[in-house]
Amino acid sequence: MIRTNNEPLRIVTATKADVPVILSLIRELAEYERLAHEVVATEEILEETLFGDRRYAEVLLAYLGDAPAGYALFFHSFSTFLGRPGIYLEDLYVKPQHRGCGIGTKLLGRLAKLASDRMCGRLEWAVLNWNEPSIGFYKSLGARPMNEWTVYRLTGDQIGRLGAAAQADKF
Amino acid sequence: MIRTNNEPLRIVTATKADVPVILSLIRELAEYERLAHEVVATEEILEETLFGDRRYAEVLLAYLGDAPAGYALFFHSFSTFLGRPGIYLEDLYVKPQHRGCGIGTKLLGRLAKLASDRMCGRLEWAVLNWNEPSIGFYKSLGARPMNEWTVYRLTGDQIGRLGAAAQADKF
Repeated sequence: MIRTNNEPLRIVTATKADVPVILSLIRELAEYERLAHEVVATEEILEETLFGDRRYAEVLLAYLGDAPAGYALFFHSFSTFLGRPGIYLEDLYVKPQHRGCGIGTKLLGRLAKLASDRMCGRLEWAVLNWNEPSIGFYKSLGARPMNEWTVYRLTGDQIGRLGAAAQADKF
Repeated sequence: MIRTNNEPLRIVTATKADVPVILSLIRELAEYERLAHEVVATEEILEETLFGDRRYAEVLLAYLGDAPAGYALFFHSFSTFLGRPGIYLEDLYVKPQHRGCGIGTKLLGRLAKLASDRMCGRLEWAVLNWNEPSIGFYKSLGARPMNEWTVYRLTGDQIGRLGAAAQADKF
């Protein structure tokens, strides 16, 4: 069993009451990724999108005693070749002072168990190319870099313009 | 309005009755990507995962008259920084004989409209790095390559091993 400062590690499925903790951990992760300026989520928004009528993602929280130590946020992807869902790990974060004692592995392990239970064929996540410590960790688990693929993204206004053009039958 | 051989283009939301068409288009796409050997999906599996109790993905079908011309299969992703869902386009495929007349753009446009309606902050998809025709098309829409990220993947046995280790508390 993992302990830090003699506190046992617990991994729990997050509930609505955990939203303030989740948002604070999201902000810490963004700072680590040098992307803090991109965080616009609020507690109200997360309550709606994570615990409202349609739940778009799920969260596992790691606690040491009563103190949050990290989290994993994930949603279901889908593989057409397998015909089955996968799990896409959007965020995996462990607080700096608790790294190196296996909490990240434990969170990933719980996700892998969940992926097995739900008949998922894939467990995937994206890593910033400069994040060598994480890359080493993922490779040690046997994860394969999908180097032959690049993700393309449309955001805000671009989506609006493309959608409006489609509706006006402008193509 | 797009027409090919004088047949008007229709884009429809797929239903369970479309599963044979969907599977046949998935197989064509896999052949184009030189990955046909990876397709293990069957009609039974797709009926369960796309139209069963839990629907893991949604499909838009493009028809020219009564003939299928292409499809888009997508699911909801989630951005923690935005606190909102996104749309992840897993497959976008147009039959070779119907390319170049705007069907792909039309499918993407419908998805963008849907992303706007559902308050999604992102519309994303992955492209094989050698697929120059598609890359040119996506860039023309303003899509940004997420070059600073690499996706890592665990599959089948690796997921099983990691999950079993987690359950046995072996970390």
